[in-house]
Amino acid sequence: MTPLIEYDDASPEVRAVYDDIMATRKTDYINNLWKVIAHHPPTLQRTWERVKTMMGASGVLDPVTREMIYIAVSVTNNCEYCIATHTASARAKGMTDEMFGELMAIIGLANETNRLANGYRVQVDERYR
Amino acid sequence: MTPLIEYDDASPEVRAVYDDIMATRKTDYINNLWKVIAHHPPTLQRTWERVKTMMGASGVLDPVTREMIYIAVSVTNNCEYCIATHTASARAKGMTDEMFGELMAIIGLANETNRLANGYRVQVDERYR
Amino acid sequence: MTPLIEYDDASPEVRAVYDDIMATRKTDYINNLWKVIAHHPPTLQRTWERVKTMMGASGVLDPVTREMIYIAVSVTNNCEYCIATHTASARAKGMTDEMFGELMAIIGLANETNRLANGYRVQVDERYR
Amino acid sequence: MTPLIEYDDASPEVRAVYDDIMATRKTDYINNLWKVIAHHPPTLQRTWERVKTMMGASGVLDPVTREMIYIAVSVTNNCEYCIATHTASARAKGMTDEMFGELMAIIGLANETNRLANGYRVQVDERYR
Amino acid sequence: MTPLIEYDDASPEVRAVYDDIMATRKTDYINNLWKVIAHHPPTLQRTWERVKTMMGASGVLDPVTREMIYIAVSVTNNCEYCIATHTASARAKGMTDEMFGELMAIIGLANETNRLANGYRVQVDERYR
Amino acid sequence: MTPLIEYDDASPEVRAVYDDIMATRKTDYINNLWKVIAHHPPTLQRTWERVKTMMGASGVLDPVTREMIYIAVSVTNNCEYCIATHTASARAKGMTDEMFGELMAIIGLANETNRLANGYRVQVDERYR
Repeated sequence: MTPLIEYDDASPEVRAVYDDIMATRKTDYINNLWKVIAHHPPTLQRTWERVKTMMGASGVLDPVTREMIYIAVSVTNNCEYCIATHTASARAKGMTDEMFGELMAIIGLANETNRLANGYRVQVDERYR
Repeated sequence: MTPLIEYDDASPEVRAVYDDIMATRKTDYINNLWKVIAHHPPTLQRTWERVKTMMGASGVLDPVTREMIYIAVSVTNNCEYCIATHTASARAKGMTDEMFGELMAIIGLANETNRLANGYRVQVDERYR
Repeated sequence: MTPLIEYDDASPEVRAVYDDIMATRKTDYINNLWKVIAHHPPTLQRTWERVKTMMGASGVLDPVTREMIYIAVSVTNNCEYCIATHTASARAKGMTDEMFGELMAIIGLANETNRLANGYRVQVDERYR
Repeated sequence: MTPLIEYDDASPEVRAVYDDIMATRKTDYINNLWKVIAHHPPTLQRTWERVKTMMGASGVLDPVTREMIYIAVSVTNNCEYCIATHTASARAKGMTDEMFGELMAIIGLANETNRLANGYRVQVDERYR
Repeated sequence: MTPLIEYDDASPEVRAVYDDIMATRKTDYINNLWKVIAHHPPTLQRTWERVKTMMGASGVLDPVTREMIYIAVSVTNNCEYCIATHTASARAKGMTDEMFGELMAIIGLANETNRLANGYRVQVDERYR
Repeated sequence: MTPLIEYDDASPEVRAVYDDIMATRKTDYINNLWKVIAHHPPTLQRTWERVKTMMGASGVLDPVTREMIYIAVSVTNNCEYCIATHTASARAKGMTDEMFGELMAIIGLANETNRLANGYRVQVDERYR
């Protein structure tokens, strides 16, 4: 495991990102992901900038839908860290047990039918090209 | 490519599924996927039964959200057939260009951060276990 | 697409592999894969050596089972070339339509349940560790 | 980790599935997967129904072959839970060490050659289209 | 396929990115990828900004190594578009046939051994944790 | 987890590979991967032979570049064992923190752009076919 860079040991540029994370999320907790990618400050900055913009409230998709899309990708890729943290985020933003159950069922279905389409080598219908 | 089984050449059990697809979707068009997996009728029946139930209107998630979740999986797995057909379905159910743009951006972001979490071997935070 | 190296244009070391492929398979046809990886002779030699040994008749698994395992991987990874050629090989070695239908159904099921296990973060049972 | 729903805490519809699993498998043990997806009863029911049908003894493929196909997918997707449990099932149904060794070798080979075909962008031979 | 947004039809913000691409790369050619993601200008801007920074000449890794890493990911994911374009970029920056051959061989090897490690469920050695 | 086959319990053919690993790497330590795949000696022999040849110093790519390519694949596939051991190898061969940071950033970028290309269904430019 990559060691965590705690706030007190962080450089000023890393601290600035940590401060922005805490201010944006109204919390004093920094997830391990940020404390780890802080080993490469440009990655920390670029990733946070994009997560802040894309997973936030602005835009046309609502925050819970964004989290569910994120979970669909993470489950398909089997990223345990991402599944654990974004399931928590989604629940915090309003995802119910029933919504999670349907989300998982659709993820499972799509992963299955993707392989039926591949394995049978189905040609895209003229009208969907 | 697996040859298509057209309605006129289909067995009664396959025709019954085709009829249900057309009645449910209020169309006389059957997608190539169904005409191909019709080579194995139990797969046709089980798959249609589940798609009908899970991608329809009942349940707590709205139809457009279901389609976007389906697309997120299909893009991550790179199933061209599934991307083409479900993007069309999502648009038919109300997905706008702006929604599609945000969907794609989140899919891209998650696919990236999944690898940052894996590659840096980030440990799941105590609170998210 | 990478251009094909035809027999007449091949170096002696590449021709030796082509000769062995044709002798082993009792055919005068060389698949495109071999004609392409012939651009890097060590890869051609090592890959053919292993395919010859592992996909042949010796060992405890029968040749059709070997092909079906190969197809299961290729469908999951969505390698169109590998699906097309190994489905043809499997059929040549005795895979029937019914066997292919069951194979595809199991591939689909496993791809689905893999995601249910991941997404729900199911812990491995004590007895299976 | 998602908490397990034990038999005594389960709803009648969930218990009915648990009873069927135990009766079908002639055991009093329920795997963690079922106890977890029991959080969404429709997923529990549909998944069990399909596993029961597809991984059982009926059909043209023998039970060990079915398990090996399932393992091939699970290893390719890196689903630890599925690898652990289905390797145990396969062994219980007759998979020997030698069969497992060959299975793993073919899975490895296919995962390699899938990438050679992709990376060299090999065109599907006319005869396999 | 998503239609291309040509320079003459592009909005000023999209044109600004196109101009920067052409100036940075000293070419008057814009790849299809950019003309397609131009449908969502924030994605176009953010993606170009990052590609420009990360695939360029600054930093500690040389440009050819960067392209080969990019190819390794794209081949593993089977993104045909990315394989085609980045193989061309890598060659333009100095990748020889021999380098490409070794690159592909290592990609194949890693995809194989990844599955051996997964399938045999190898525990990480104490010293590498 | 598959049990380890220690040197003292190994058959002569397995010991011969262990001896070659230790001699080649100038160490008395054998990684768990080898001790596990030793359960199937032909896999042990073939895999070691290829790793020895391909990850060594001969050829046109330098050893650190080889390891970074290997890591790019392993991170994309999320093989924890392979990430842990090959990150250690890469560092032992000279990969610095800064190099690792750039490597991870490129892996993340490629995983993202692969999905943008797939999801938008971008057609390969005429000139890159």
